[in-house]
Amino acid sequence: MVMPESSKKDMILIPSLALNLLLLYPLFVGCKKWELLSWSRRAAAEAEAVASVSCSGHGRAYLDGITVDGMPVCECNSCFGGPNCSEVIAGCPADVNSGDPLFLEPFWMQRAASSAVLIAGWHRMSYSFNDNSSISQELEKHIRKVHAMVKNAVTDRFIVFGAGSTQLLNAAVHALSMDNSSPPSAVVASVPFYPSYKQQTDFFSSLGYKFYGDTSMRKNPSDVLMNAIEFVTSPNNPDGKLRKKVLKGESVRAIHDHAYYWPHFTGIPTPADEDIMIFTLSKLTGHAGTRFGWALIKDEAVYRRMLTYSDESCYGVSRDTQVRALKLLKVVLEGEGRELFTFGYKTMKDRWEKLSQALSFSKLFSIQDIAPVYCSFFQGIRDPSPAFAWFKCEREEDKDCYTVLRDAGIIGRKGTLFGAESCYVRLSLITRQDDFELLLRQINKLVAEKG
Amino acid sequence: MVMPESSKKDMILIPSLALNLLLLYPLFVGCKKWELLSWSRRAAAEAEAVASVSCSGHGRAYLDGITVDGMPVCECNSCFGGPNCSEVIAGCPADVNSGDPLFLEPFWMQRAASSAVLIAGWHRMSYSFNDNSSISQELEKHIRKVHAMVKNAVTDRFIVFGAGSTQLLNAAVHALSMDNSSPPSAVVASVPFYPSYKQQTDFFSSLGYKFYGDTSMRKNPSDVLMNAIEFVTSPNNPDGKLRKKVLKGESVRAIHDHAYYWPHFTGIPTPADEDIMIFTLSKLTGHAGTRFGWALIKDEAVYRRMLTYSDESCYGVSRDTQVRALKLLKVVLEGEGRELFTFGYKTMKDRWEKLSQALSFSKLFSIQDIAPVYCSFFQGIRDPSPAFAWFKCEREEDKDCYTVLRDAGIIGRKGTLFGAESCYVRLSLITRQDDFELLLRQINKLVAEKG
Repeated sequence: MVMPESSKKDMILIPSLALNLLLLYPLFVGCKKWELLSWSRRAAAEAEAVASVSCSGHGRAYLDGITVDGMPVCECNSCFGGPNCSEVIAGCPADVNSGDPLFLEPFWMQRAASSAVLIAGWHRMSYSFNDNSSISQELEKHIRKVHAMVKNAVTDRFIVFGAGSTQLLNAAVHALSMDNSSPPSAVVASVPFYPSYKQQTDFFSSLGYKFYGDTSMRKNPSDVLMNAIEFVTSPNNPDGKLRKKVLKGESVRAIHDHAYYWPHFTGIPTPADEDIMIFTLSKLTGHAGTRFGWALIKDEAVYRRMLTYSDESCYGVSRDTQVRALKLLKVVLEGEGRELFTFGYKTMKDRWEKLSQALSFSKLFSIQDIAPVYCSFFQGIRDPSPAFAWFKCEREEDKDCYTVLRDAGIIGRKGTLFGAESCYVRLSLITRQDDFELLLRQINKLVAEKG
Repeated sequence: MVMPESSKKDMILIPSLALNLLLLYPLFVGCKKWELLSWSRRAAAEAEAVASVSCSGHGRAYLDGITVDGMPVCECNSCFGGPNCSEVIAGCPADVNSGDPLFLEPFWMQRAASSAVLIAGWHRMSYSFNDNSSISQELEKHIRKVHAMVKNAVTDRFIVFGAGSTQLLNAAVHALSMDNSSPPSAVVASVPFYPSYKQQTDFFSSLGYKFYGDTSMRKNPSDVLMNAIEFVTSPNNPDGKLRKKVLKGESVRAIHDHAYYWPHFTGIPTPADEDIMIFTLSKLTGHAGTRFGWALIKDEAVYRRMLTYSDESCYGVSRDTQVRALKLLKVVLEGEGRELFTFGYKTMKDRWEKLSQALSFSKLFSIQDIAPVYCSFFQGIRDPSPAFAWFKCEREEDKDCYTVLRDAGIIGRKGTLFGAESCYVRLSLITRQDDFELLLRQINKLVAEKG
């Protein structure tokens, strides 16, 4: 059969018109969001271009990285090098000194769309929010939601923001010490304690307070009249133990550092309900670089003092940081928090099991015991998953444990910095996977060689 | 003429095919950047949706604003209200107390595409940049470029970042005072001075320093042995005068606060070349909420101490803030800086002229004289364009000038806070246009009523 020319043209015309409709549809109806993009497109394209730089899975390019020909270059993870981070650096030690919480990086890579935030050039230029504060009410609301969901703290409290928990630690010491006349308040913590407590308190050398060391230093009866400020870290950094206040009496005020009181690192037996509780985004979402923390405070006078501290120090937390923190907390809240905390807990538990196994037959080296704890968030008894190993060299001849490890290609943090003996070293388990695997290899080699 | 059916179809087919080509072209060739957008699209669409909320030009919605039905609501400028900020609040005073630099907001609205930044969920999670510092090398490089372009400071110096200049002021005092044994260093400034110098120094009540007040307090010969730290603010806040260090001698160290040393506010006769020079994004780009400042420091030991201060206080400036500051400085550098500084200078000069004119025939009220200054950036003599008016009530019966102004519907900042007499009040001229216009109306009314 010979088709008439008109019918042949129909065979092209009809699909052509259909394609017209298909292509025009989104312009008018279907993808409003997409089509409306105008001024934001450039920033979005820049971010995607940088994200697409290939660094072999062992590095990353960043928007504000050093550029070559206008494009940010790869920044390689430790022990990787070369222009695209594909080269393994031979003999590179496992650096597990820092508490950099990069174990959560893959979680955020997997949630690119929901976790990105675009900040307009005119975003929050003012010193203050509309209520004249320097605190985003939306962010505060979301912080309360996260605590309510995780059941790790009561939140009928005042909230102050800080540039990481770091800033809030000193703000709290400052606020509590202002009550006092001379002599200055004694700042104490139980060994082993987070080194910043001492470093920071010494550095700011105020008239109002002075670092005294271990809580036992103040058990002397003559000290009872002296006001004390006790840091209580729970779970403790470095050893992951849940802790309570040690000192008693009316002259003792406590600052509860709950940086690690999240289901990644510990079971949550009960909501914390203390006078001053400090948390940080760093150990919740892994965004250490974002410098965002918050304090839940019972007493209004202490709250006001900490707010004044924040104002006098830097007029509150950067509004860019606050809008990003809000975005991240919205992702945390997705799926009732199961996604983030399951990822975090599984990762940390797996690492602890592997490290425990590597050391299980060693007579020379050990790590802390951690008892399983009931977790009201996961509704069950949980295996240990601490942020750090508190590593011990058992033999007298290995008492400089830091050096023993360093010689074995492992850079930890000296136990003496925590007020403990030199036979202890803190090893971070919250590193990138690459770094953890290197640590494990070096530990296995050490145990194979030394026993 | 009757066309054959085939020719009729051609009249549809050919345009249809052409339209298909047109619509398909960008998918394959033309708009690679656009088409590649994937994970970033959601954040971009969210930002544009918020930006498109209409607040009648007297308010703005923000990504982290309070939401109703999931959408952030309008936050109205002062003296405007209603759901879309269209209602003028009757009897609302002109609030020109704060130094909020919102006069630059329209500049950034006009540069939406070039000034937006999209931050990925995994952006800079680490405590440190790849060089183990907490300072973006790219940002540091761009700060040097801006100074070189404006010719307002020599930059062969060390740079420390801070959460606004606020944090750097105390960091500098702390760093300079650490040289001393007892007695503590005397912190001084020449009246009228920026109130934060006193407030902050008093608040942090360190062992190392103490606020002494006006520089003249230390002109007593018996004080010469005491170490002094002199704040030199140039141009001065509140009066806009270019200032030099007052105190002489080896025991005096100066901190030069150059927050306002930009072509918006003053001619730039010569690049500043001092031991410690402090700048802030707030008064350069108007982003007060971003909390970003920097110090240029000659002496390496002082630099190291200020870095340690930053670390002990908060582990450096939020990485989100740094990436945004970088983006903003890139816009500042566009067109050799002419765009931003012409906008800033014109706005401020216009406001100063209008205010001067309003007060030109008044016998009761005056503002400071400002001499025209040569500006090496604009290459010519410039008219005055200060950030603040240093308003004086001339009559004895008006010596509580703050109250006189308040009764006239103007909220200024009391002169006594600057160490000056109560006949002075600081009025901010760097507010939003709405606020400046209200101020001008109230001033005109005051002069018309009182003379």
